[in-house]
Amino acid sequence: MNKNLDNYNAALRWRYATKSFDPSKKIPQDVLDGLLECLRLTASSFGLQLWKFLIISNPEIRANLLAPSYSQSQVVDASHLIVFCRPKSFDPTMIETFVNQTASTRNQSVESLAPFKEYMDKATQNPSFPTEKWMDNQLYIALGNLLSACALAGVDSCPMEGFSKPKYDEVLGLENDNLTAVVACPIGYRLESDKYASLAKVRYPLEKVVSFLK
Amino acid sequence: MNKNLDNYNAALRWRYATKSFDPSKKIPQDVLDGLLECLRLTASSFGLQLWKFLIISNPEIRANLLAPSYSQSQVVDASHLIVFCRPKSFDPTMIETFVNQTASTRNQSVESLAPFKEYMDKATQNPSFPTEKWMDNQLYIALGNLLSACALAGVDSCPMEGFSKPKYDEVLGLENDNLTAVVACPIGYRLESDKYASLAKVRYPLEKVVSFLK
Repeated sequence: MNKNLDNYNAALRWRYATKSFDPSKKIPQDVLDGLLECLRLTASSFGLQLWKFLIISNPEIRANLLAPSYSQSQVVDASHLIVFCRPKSFDPTMIETFVNQTASTRNQSVESLAPFKEYMDKATQNPSFPTEKWMDNQLYIALGNLLSACALAGVDSCPMEGFSKPKYDEVLGLENDNLTAVVACPIGYRLESDKYASLAKVRYPLEKVVSFLK
Repeated sequence: MNKNLDNYNAALRWRYATKSFDPSKKIPQDVLDGLLECLRLTASSFGLQLWKFLIISNPEIRANLLAPSYSQSQVVDASHLIVFCRPKSFDPTMIETFVNQTASTRNQSVESLAPFKEYMDKATQNPSFPTEKWMDNQLYIALGNLLSACALAGVDSCPMEGFSKPKYDEVLGLENDNLTAVVACPIGYRLESDKYASLAKVRYPLEKVVSFLK
């Protein structure tokens, strides 16, 4: 068995959706930096990175998010609250911006990337293209990535879909920046008293979730 | 900086959306087992695990998926093709099955889990609950997890959203099992000649994708 995978699987077994965070424990800056670098490196459709990650430590803002989070205390107690946002509406200039970034990163001319740009333009302008869902999907890849990164770093996390997105957008003033909240994840360190920490992880046996077509 | 995170970030930098797989290189069984264990451990909403991962090595089936994949050769050339599926339609008995699994894993009575069951029933029966999108979201967490696991194991991958889902469902006979394909990911080993392998990774600087609310 691959040693990295062993280590990774042990981390995934260690993690759980943390219900009670220790409000006194903060994630050290170097660890936070490492987690954000993971987020930045997340894969996305066409590589477009149509996202903004809000890293919220401000106690007042978090207090204002408590009611829209249906009083889930992780929002205020965790070391940091990460809110995964995407553009509220997609705009073809976002492709242009990305093509420019690609050209400068790879020391290529923008012109040489014209076929790539056209390909992305065509795909996203197709009337049946599910633009908003497609942007949301990418944020869930980032969430999966963050959960893994946290587990490897010994940082607790709690993915959260259950919150009022319109109210998050309002409290965070996202509309002005053409952003909207999709999913959230408080991160930090569990309270030793969190009874959920010691419960056995519930997963179906492999036979139920995997089928081999050989 | 956390050593595990350093190692993880190096793996994320190594990975790229592999265009050309070496058809002669197969993932060893122990590594494949490790990757599937990662998938099995993926976090999901309420822990419900509403998914089925198809691990396809059969060459004929894969040849039949080539056209529905718009001729992306990774589908036939990679060591394995993973197709991420979810129930075509959600059924409240899936909550019951999960509650039974929880009871047996944790050595609890099913009755003691009644409030948890009721909570899940209520949430999923809300007329505004986006059942299909919600199930899809979880598969993208699994995809994010798989991409990371592969990178750590030195296995190449190529997340694929661009395929005909109805045709995948048809070729794979998914309807009979109340399943539908959501996203796919060929995994294996890159061809040394894949020119995409050596291109610089294009990511926006941290300032563009992260905002701190302190």
